[in-house]
Amino acid sequence: MYIPTFDDMVAAHERIKPYIHRTPVLTSSYLNELSGCEIFFKCENFQKAGAFKVRGASNAVFALSDIEASKGVCTHSSGNHALSLSYAANRRGISCNVVMPRTAPEAKKSAVRGYGGIITECEPSTTAREEVFAEVQAKTGGNFVHPYNDPRVIAGQGTCSRELLEQMEGFGRTLDMIVAPIGGGGMISGTCLTLSKLAPDVQIIASEPEQADDAYRSFKAGHLISDDAPDTIADGLKVPLKDLTWHFVKNHVTDILTASEIEIIDSMKLTWQRMKIIIEPSCAVPLATILKNPEVFAGKRVGVVITGGNVDLAKLPWI
Amino acid sequence: MYIPTFDDMVAAHERIKPYIHRTPVLTSSYLNELSGCEIFFKCENFQKAGAFKVRGASNAVFALSDIEASKGVCTHSSGNHALSLSYAANRRGISCNVVMPRTAPEAKKSAVRGYGGIITECEPSTTAREEVFAEVQAKTGGNFVHPYNDPRVIAGQGTCSRELLEQMEGFGRTLDMIVAPIGGGGMISGTCLTLSKLAPDVQIIASEPEQADDAYRSFKAGHLISDDAPDTIADGLKVPLKDLTWHFVKNHVTDILTASEIEIIDSMKLTWQRMKIIIEPSCAVPLATILKNPEVFAGKRVGVVITGGNVDLAKLPWI
Repeated sequence: MYIPTFDDMVAAHERIKPYIHRTPVLTSSYLNELSGCEIFFKCENFQKAGAFKVRGASNAVFALSDIEASKGVCTHSSGNHALSLSYAANRRGISCNVVMPRTAPEAKKSAVRGYGGIITECEPSTTAREEVFAEVQAKTGGNFVHPYNDPRVIAGQGTCSRELLEQMEGFGRTLDMIVAPIGGGGMISGTCLTLSKLAPDVQIIASEPEQADDAYRSFKAGHLISDDAPDTIADGLKVPLKDLTWHFVKNHVTDILTASEIEIIDSMKLTWQRMKIIIEPSCAVPLATILKNPEVFAGKRVGVVITGGNVDLAKLPWI
Repeated sequence: MYIPTFDDMVAAHERIKPYIHRTPVLTSSYLNELSGCEIFFKCENFQKAGAFKVRGASNAVFALSDIEASKGVCTHSSGNHALSLSYAANRRGISCNVVMPRTAPEAKKSAVRGYGGIITECEPSTTAREEVFAEVQAKTGGNFVHPYNDPRVIAGQGTCSRELLEQMEGFGRTLDMIVAPIGGGGMISGTCLTLSKLAPDVQIIASEPEQADDAYRSFKAGHLISDDAPDTIADGLKVPLKDLTWHFVKNHVTDILTASEIEIIDSMKLTWQRMKIIIEPSCAVPLATILKNPEVFAGKRVGVVITGGNVDLAKLPWI
């Protein structure tokens, strides 16, 4: 198991700069007052392909040699990694095959197709996804870019918190903690990779849906626990940790907090109403856990990663 | 009739700075490609109270002498001016009475109440609104801040295009035109006031719903035409021009373009999907007219004013 290094993250940042946005950091005086802390939202919903996952996907795609790239790339993903990899492959002019659960949001599937990605659907479980993927990979021979358990991907995701730390200078503030959602653990691992070197005193809090709390239970048990097919409105957070992301979580994460489905939906709606930005359910989990645990966050300066904004607008959870 | 001057706008900008945001200017490579022009969105949906109207309202409220202010302020409005005036009055610590049509979006009514504004409802027509308002004003004696036909308000709205021009320097670009929605004409008049001095070569295009096209018909006829109760999804654009805004429209506007209800809804949804920002129907009208008239905008650098983001999330026009 190759564990990505800080230098890998720095190299990734150079490599992907032409293909990603330096996304803005937004604040809301209303949410600051409501939460009792000072929140700095790193808005990866404004990222290319609508999600932070384009960082890791672009790093993997553009790190390939020409010979490797010639066979294209492939992956399985609930959505944002699929469309991010399709975007990156499209920018490099290579093919991209993705296995997606048939229940993935239509907005994500159609965005994959829009970038030229080829979708094979599977049943919505980790087992089904990996089985169908094995067939697709055998057929195409493409380079497998795992959605999170891949050092190239984690190094790419680490560029997000590096930018956030730099952007905090514009606010004349330093952070006490960063809160990010946890599903497979790619964003959290990248955050650990970057902060352990650049800002080791900044706490790292992972936020997870109660209904898909394998990371929470792993963290409390001290060993890796996986669920096969959890069900949550936070469609990007259904996947389990794997060995590489577990390595980062167990060594660097301060705590994992969970939120219920209704708390996630309320926080999503509140963000839409007050910040006027479209965020997907997954990235409402951090705000939900902040509002639920005021004693943890009181008076702190808190970075929150808004991981993506790809939502089926015809199917909103509060309607 | 006092016609506000460029110096009034400059004074307004100084006066309101503590109470407003300098809102960001966003771009979308997708929408640039789709439209064939380069669009710079001035995002007043991120403004305090969720709308540009807080500029004019704050200018009026903070220009009052202490004696004038002691009786509070009052107005009639379909929504955004009502909540902007409530916000400004709240910041100054004075009372605010507003007459709103009973059909105004619930989100706007509850925001007014959140800022401490007192609502009296009326039937949804200009006649009914003005009648009920006369009663409210007689009772309270508050200073009447008209939603648009008021020199203080127009001077305040003019600060928006001043900021946009300044912010264009950050993009290393100048604008060929600015497109803004037109209802009562407050934003367009403020834009005329500012551009006629700072950038007289920049064209000013007003965009209007076909179903509330009194400004379009006035512009083509060369004299003021008013409708009493037009019906459109663009709830902020139902009101007619008045003498002061008509003065600016007839003297400075380059053209008025219209869009159908379905074109407005499609552009609203497209903006949500692609830019990940919440915009209300009224400010989707400019994009709708741009996409409908590619020959007018081809190859141009176009500033678009996103006027507000106050939407009933439980009642979206495409669901």
